[in-house]
Amino acid sequence: MQCDNSSTEGQKFQVRKLDISDKSKGFIELLQQLTVCDSVSDKEFKDRFQELSSLGDDHVVCVIEDSQSGKIIATGSVFIEKKFIRNCGKVGHIEDVVVDSNARGKQLGKKIIAFLSDHARSMGCYKVILDCSSENKTFYEKCGFKQKEIQMVMYFT
Amino acid sequence: MQCDNSSTEGQKFQVRKLDISDKSKGFIELLQQLTVCDSVSDKEFKDRFQELSSLGDDHVVCVIEDSQSGKIIATGSVFIEKKFIRNCGKVGHIEDVVVDSNARGKQLGKKIIAFLSDHARSMGCYKVILDCSSENKTFYEKCGFKQKEIQMVMYFT
Repeated sequence: MQCDNSSTEGQKFQVRKLDISDKSKGFIELLQQLTVCDSVSDKEFKDRFQELSSLGDDHVVCVIEDSQSGKIIATGSVFIEKKFIRNCGKVGHIEDVVVDSNARGKQLGKKIIAFLSDHARSMGCYKVILDCSSENKTFYEKCGFKQKEIQMVMYFT
Repeated sequence: MQCDNSSTEGQKFQVRKLDISDKSKGFIELLQQLTVCDSVSDKEFKDRFQELSSLGDDHVVCVIEDSQSGKIIATGSVFIEKKFIRNCGKVGHIEDVVVDSNARGKQLGKKIIAFLSDHARSMGCYKVILDCSSENKTFYEKCGFKQKEIQMVMYFT
């Protein structure tokens, strides 16, 4: 009997939407690998989860759970911006993509980006965009993105 | 008696939120100076206007109307993204800023950016971001922004 490793890997690392129980599976700790994210209380998490859920398909956070360890090892989000330009078009904005440092090299980042891009496309967006550091440019090019503009920022805190 | 021109100019070019009647004041034609925006029907405009209005302060489109001509001569938008990172922080995204080519040099762009940035700050955002071409970098630096990342894009249509 043949052993189909790729299929097994595929099943093991499926992308799904964030669930409220994912806080106890290391979701916040994973985000801490991306940027500042101090401890978030259960109530804060629940409130934000429900705020985002109320936006339905207009704001989706996805995760990959390692079925063996039960830990969240990759995540990313996309929200759908509604515009007047492009004949009242829509744009998908991908944000907060991170893969656990112990789970690199398994193409999990690509899976996350594909899931989020597919969602934006299915929502009728004419494009999907994201901001990244120059170091991550090559990765996103492999995902089918091209560099276009520059990102400007003003911090308040 | 002193004539305070700056105050008169200030009154003449006040920033306010988009109104449903602004379609008849050249709002769509102004957006056409920014990018592709074919004719939008009254129904399409009304539907999108109401969709955005339902988001309340989480998505604001502002305009400047020339009180003399009754035309919309500048616009921009900001929407508030709710995150888990930064302790369930919020980020303002500025989009679709344009000033009528016949109304340049009156600091209207700065007024629009100040209005949108102030809105993001008042909503509790820890930062406000925007994507722009390299040619507009200097303008946004004058508005208090700094270059940070690069923007990547994938077009569907």
